[in-house]
Amino acid sequence: MKNYWIAIDWGTSNFRAFLMKEHQCLDTVSAQCGLLHVPDRQFAAALKPLIARWLALHPQLPLLMAGMVGSQQGWQEVPYIALPASSRQLAQCTASLKTPWGSPCQIVAGVSGKNEFGLPDVMRGEEIQLLGLAALHPDPQNSQYVILPGTHSKHAELHNGEILRFSTFMTGEIYSVMLSHSLLGRDVPESPEDPRAFALGVTNALHAPHLSNALFSARTLRLNGELTPAQVASYLSGLLIGAELYAVAGKEAWIVGSPALTERYTRAAKQLGITLTSADGNACFIQGMTQIYQCLHGESS
Amino acid sequence: MKNYWIAIDWGTSNFRAFLMKEHQCLDTVSAQCGLLHVPDRQFAAALKPLIARWLALHPQLPLLMAGMVGSQQGWQEVPYIALPASSRQLAQCTASLKTPWGSPCQIVAGVSGKNEFGLPDVMRGEEIQLLGLAALHPDPQNSQYVILPGTHSKHAELHNGEILRFSTFMTGEIYSVMLSHSLLGRDVPESPEDPRAFALGVTNALHAPHLSNALFSARTLRLNGELTPAQVASYLSGLLIGAELYAVAGKEAWIVGSPALTERYTRAAKQLGITLTSADGNACFIQGMTQIYQCLHGESS
Repeated sequence: MKNYWIAIDWGTSNFRAFLMKEHQCLDTVSAQCGLLHVPDRQFAAALKPLIARWLALHPQLPLLMAGMVGSQQGWQEVPYIALPASSRQLAQCTASLKTPWGSPCQIVAGVSGKNEFGLPDVMRGEEIQLLGLAALHPDPQNSQYVILPGTHSKHAELHNGEILRFSTFMTGEIYSVMLSHSLLGRDVPESPEDPRAFALGVTNALHAPHLSNALFSARTLRLNGELTPAQVASYLSGLLIGAELYAVAGKEAWIVGSPALTERYTRAAKQLGITLTSADGNACFIQGMTQIYQCLHGESS
Repeated sequence: MKNYWIAIDWGTSNFRAFLMKEHQCLDTVSAQCGLLHVPDRQFAAALKPLIARWLALHPQLPLLMAGMVGSQQGWQEVPYIALPASSRQLAQCTASLKTPWGSPCQIVAGVSGKNEFGLPDVMRGEEIQLLGLAALHPDPQNSQYVILPGTHSKHAELHNGEILRFSTFMTGEIYSVMLSHSLLGRDVPESPEDPRAFALGVTNALHAPHLSNALFSARTLRLNGELTPAQVASYLSGLLIGAELYAVAGKEAWIVGSPALTERYTRAAKQLGITLTSADGNACFIQGMTQIYQCLHGESS
């Protein structure tokens, strides 16, 4: 079964796999089977059933994996490569292993470097989507700003198809931690998104530029009756996404993420006068992995 | 026992009481017996043993209370008064109750208003220290900026002995929540403060002005070996206090708080070129309560 391979994005919370024929995706699997759900580091045992239907046809399909699977807590640690990062450099720094069923497997490195504020920053997995985006949507100016929203949102600058620089914003994690464990989330019921409360959060993030101050308004607006308990989560989301996008002020940017998050970010960006263009995350990942696979195996493999 | 009374600061976590003779403090009690530790809203039952030794001498001493005891979750809710706030206005808006043992008791209102960023803000308890400070340390310019560090730090502007405006920073709560519940605190051991890590946090807060971004450096500096796990808490504290003080840039300010917090804030402020002068929190509270007591009972009581 020449030219067949599997591309895998294995993160902390989620698992996605793509059956590939050269650069074409034939089938996909996704599961909430991130590294946190793998007991006793039994990665091979966790992986096999997830891709069993493909192995049944091609028992030793080569695997190319990216994401936290290459971290210290993952299957095999792959040291970060330094910025600026290209597909070629990532291909040169994979770690190899063999699965018990005989599939050759390579794990792609993460990327580390100093962010625009001079602090060290790291990513694992997002670099694939970034490099894929640069190839799928090349910019005439050879320069792109990309937002990957999530638990730890990444903002990256691409230049000539390479990752030049990036910064992490803990937007998603601060949201869930403050909602679950701080005064702000006390007696907040599960509720659908409230677009008005979200928009108010975005606006207030703009007026109150100190996040540790702005967050308190999720409490005071409720005390004075401007927010109901059911609106607090949406307001908090608007506040945190607004604060994150504040760093993008005046830029045009790409956004690569789930439809729900992309839609929220795009709405917030509009309020702040930022133009976001969305790109499909799976397509970017597949393209990025294909580039690395081709570097590893030659263009014709 | 004319002219004897008890001033009480009853907050969410802590309880402090002062036996007063007119404006002089004769004795103090403090206990980790905040409202959270009072079962089934049995406030009278919780209070009596804390001040029993004073009641033994003077069984119906009048009480004047401030803090969260006047909130919805407290003994009796006292509506907030609006900015600007003076001792006289606070005295006009107390709530009265009688304890089961016959002490007349008044609870002081909190203060609410729009902060400098246009968002609603509230305080309960801190207003007493602020008004006390304005009286104890009057400023020749009639204008003071005061920081009350804590779980929800308050920054207030005083003018002519009144509270003109204030803002809350959730510094202490974000610190404890992120350390206990986010990735940043994972496997962080209990450790004494590390002044070098704290100072690095303050410096980095200055360079990385987006808090949700800066926080991630508590992870990356550990990943790249610049911080040990034992230094993470001190670094995070420096980062959050630095971010809070960033809002004070270029100002001279008073600080009223515990010796440990005051010392930390003063160290951070020095790094940022901010001059902080400390004032004793108990002295400010006693002075503020005395002013209100005198308004309530006439100067000669």
